[in-house]
Amino acid sequence: MRRFLDLEDLDDQRLERVLDRARDLRLHPVGQGLAGRTVGLLFLNPSVRTLASMQAAVTQQGGQVFVITPGAGSWVMETRDGAVMDGPAAEHVREAIPVLAEYADLLAVRCFARGEDLAEDLADDLIRKMADLCPKPFINLESASAHPCQALGDWRTLEDLEVPRNGRLVLSWAWHPKPLPYAVPASTLRMAARRGMEVTVLHPPGYELPPSVMEEARALAARSGGTVRETVDRREAMEGAHVLYGKSWAAPSCYGDPEADQRMRAPLRQEWCIRESWFANSRPEARFLHCLPVRRNVKVADEVLDGPRSAVVHQAGNRLHAQKALLLEMLGGCR
Amino acid sequence: MRRFLDLEDLDDQRLERVLDRARDLRLHPVGQGLAGRTVGLLFLNPSVRTLASMQAAVTQQGGQVFVITPGAGSWVMETRDGAVMDGPAAEHVREAIPVLAEYADLLAVRCFARGEDLAEDLADDLIRKMADLCPKPFINLESASAHPCQALGDWRTLEDLEVPRNGRLVLSWAWHPKPLPYAVPASTLRMAARRGMEVTVLHPPGYELPPSVMEEARALAARSGGTVRETVDRREAMEGAHVLYGKSWAAPSCYGDPEADQRMRAPLRQEWCIRESWFANSRPEARFLHCLPVRRNVKVADEVLDGPRSAVVHQAGNRLHAQKALLLEMLGGCR
Amino acid sequence: MRRFLDLEDLDDQRLERVLDRARDLRLHPVGQGLAGRTVGLLFLNPSVRTLASMQAAVTQQGGQVFVITPGAGSWVMETRDGAVMDGPAAEHVREAIPVLAEYADLLAVRCFARGEDLAEDLADDLIRKMADLCPKPFINLESASAHPCQALGDWRTLEDLEVPRNGRLVLSWAWHPKPLPYAVPASTLRMAARRGMEVTVLHPPGYELPPSVMEEARALAARSGGTVRETVDRREAMEGAHVLYGKSWAAPSCYGDPEADQRMRAPLRQEWCIRESWFANSRPEARFLHCLPVRRNVKVADEVLDGPRSAVVHQAGNRLHAQKALLLEMLGGCR
Repeated sequence: MRRFLDLEDLDDQRLERVLDRARDLRLHPVGQGLAGRTVGLLFLNPSVRTLASMQAAVTQQGGQVFVITPGAGSWVMETRDGAVMDGPAAEHVREAIPVLAEYADLLAVRCFARGEDLAEDLADDLIRKMADLCPKPFINLESASAHPCQALGDWRTLEDLEVPRNGRLVLSWAWHPKPLPYAVPASTLRMAARRGMEVTVLHPPGYELPPSVMEEARALAARSGGTVRETVDRREAMEGAHVLYGKSWAAPSCYGDPEADQRMRAPLRQEWCIRESWFANSRPEARFLHCLPVRRNVKVADEVLDGPRSAVVHQAGNRLHAQKALLLEMLGGCR
Repeated sequence: MRRFLDLEDLDDQRLERVLDRARDLRLHPVGQGLAGRTVGLLFLNPSVRTLASMQAAVTQQGGQVFVITPGAGSWVMETRDGAVMDGPAAEHVREAIPVLAEYADLLAVRCFARGEDLAEDLADDLIRKMADLCPKPFINLESASAHPCQALGDWRTLEDLEVPRNGRLVLSWAWHPKPLPYAVPASTLRMAARRGMEVTVLHPPGYELPPSVMEEARALAARSGGTVRETVDRREAMEGAHVLYGKSWAAPSCYGDPEADQRMRAPLRQEWCIRESWFANSRPEARFLHCLPVRRNVKVADEVLDGPRSAVVHQAGNRLHAQKALLLEMLGGCR
Repeated sequence: MRRFLDLEDLDDQRLERVLDRARDLRLHPVGQGLAGRTVGLLFLNPSVRTLASMQAAVTQQGGQVFVITPGAGSWVMETRDGAVMDGPAAEHVREAIPVLAEYADLLAVRCFARGEDLAEDLADDLIRKMADLCPKPFINLESASAHPCQALGDWRTLEDLEVPRNGRLVLSWAWHPKPLPYAVPASTLRMAARRGMEVTVLHPPGYELPPSVMEEARALAARSGGTVRETVDRREAMEGAHVLYGKSWAAPSCYGDPEADQRMRAPLRQEWCIRESWFANSRPEARFLHCLPVRRNVKVADEVLDGPRSAVVHQAGNRLHAQKALLLEMLGGCR
């Protein structure tokens, strides 16, 4: 297995094997499964969980790791083909990716959406182009439209929480000062649909997910026996929910125009900060998930994050185990 | 032993054991005492010695390490409880600390004083709150009012220099362009008082240490047989001194108002740059210590730093040995 | 061997041994030759290849590594002797270097030219001063006037490409928005001259290399049987060339006055972007080298970088093997 760009790169058998191994690695985290293997991490955008958990995953299995952070110790990088590089960027990923691959057995790269052109970001071509530039195994650490390591950890978390595979998951929009990309909501939606869940996307008017994101998820649900629907009615969405997954994203109609989006979202601030009252008609034991980082009392209230429903720390912990299992699947035993 | 927030977290027996081990580790630095253990380092403020020596301490004993630096590759972090996070901070330590603890066997955190409210910074509640958020062993890498790893290394240095336990140590204020927090002077004072030394705090009028800092040190001296006094008279302070420990700090009366402090300190610039002439009536062999970094020819003259009295490099070297001994005490042999 | 400040620090026998070992390490990259050894990396300037390849070199041989990056997580550093440090720099390399040496078995430091005074930068005194401050083995990771790790990797690359030791190498100036230092062109020129090559420096009028750089190279060529000449005539330069090595540098006559240099270079932009047409009268199989990073379509056109002549990725890969061989030469087997 050479590439992990999206959860779809793991077929069902491999996915179950990686999820099982992630569960086992929680109990037995340390080993030598990556001894003699070097993993290069390239972060074109900030990170906490991914940066820490990837380093821990590699070194706890006896491997080596290096981190390159353009703009914080390394040259600012250009990603556009054909660019005339007379601006701040001193290096192009067309060199950086194959060069870093010379020093590593696997590269893992974070590169967020550019946020200018909706079709371009949804196509997620940049991460594929970077994978094509890399002659070694390659992992997507969050691209314009996918965050598959998050989705893998989230699936593991749903298992740990004993949420039924056909349980009800609400993916809800929440307020944030800025329009954010679709990587996490799209990956969460695909993951839940593939798992066979009854998924509801809850959002204020104008903040529906782009049609292609919904269609991909519906196709996965059709295969797994799940369902995907959307609504602007919170009460209807939360009825009988097992899980509320909070996230913010941009309005598709304003994509590339952050001021327009901010005008549109301004009046939603109070109503779309996730609170305990949202769980009035969910299952009593319903859990709260979020990929983190989260802006407290803006996107989600303290009462939810600090309350017993929140599983966000356990969820983040699974990033380590899921990524370690993935690395062992991609690199282990193949030297 | 779960927490090292201040030197007081080591009882006398443990302290002597850690100091002895630090001495031995200078000669035998490499081992496997931390094999299979992961240490997470979270730096909310800049660092050179702490960052390098903690990484070396962990890896030279076979352990793994990761570093998270908010603002330089990682999200800017909020530390205030109840904050409405609509500013630059994307992540709260309430999530970051427990999440990073999922990836590590021990967390070590640097978080300087906020510099706004004197009572708040002296209470040093933030580092305690962060330790409370951490279900794993926790080390303070410099908080609002304590720098215990520095104090531990400094004690080791005083032993190496064969300064008598009841010797004379002068902790002197020195000029710096900005008001600095009390973490190092307070920890130095407590360390020297606990060691049984005759400690004199030397400072210009208005730059006394806060009363609570002096009282804590006097209580420690009362138990150890040491003494703690203060003076504005350099000649009196330096009489017979074994050690001059240089440091700058804020004026308590202007705390939170840096412009007022800068007006107050402006006329002190020439007189309070530490020079060789300060040692006129010390013991002839008196040594100079400083925690580093130091602004040359502002806080301390080249002639002192480059002269034979200076032990600042040896002192910084002991950060490695002391922290390695501490990590072995906290993590070694308990897997 | 205690210092590697320039390629000249390796005598012929050692140089051949390191080059041979670099070749072998490409095939057998992993070992324990640096087990128990700690390498400290201090980057006063940005880096991608050097930062990644040094970390990989150390850890793939079982060693430990730490990285300090002033301005990105660590204090900004002063380098000038006698400085009165009341500006942004909080720490002086006079402390930082010996302190970091306390934590490591070898230090490697990057410190670019200051770009103010030509004689000062050509003298390359700063890196020598830093090596003098370091009681441990020391490696230059690019100084004002030398980039010897690059030169070592480049020599290995010329061998791999089977370029004859007396082959023709053209070192050509290329356009860049800013005046750049002489470290890479000077090191490349000395390396090729020492290898016995027929070297031509190609540049627009006013962009000759400083006389001392040319003289050093001519002295090396005199010993090796090579030649060093310069020209402003591209056709003459490229006749029968085996290798075109692209690089940009400052005009000596404007050194320290970037605006004057930019006025002088502005009209050269179109003509001095390296293109495939430059190879019209080279050997048909002539190769293109560049140390990277490179500004695409400004310094070098996509058609060259993406075409079959380009060996820049292989060249960058040799940084890893060459530095690993160097580290083993300097640290291996001497514990």
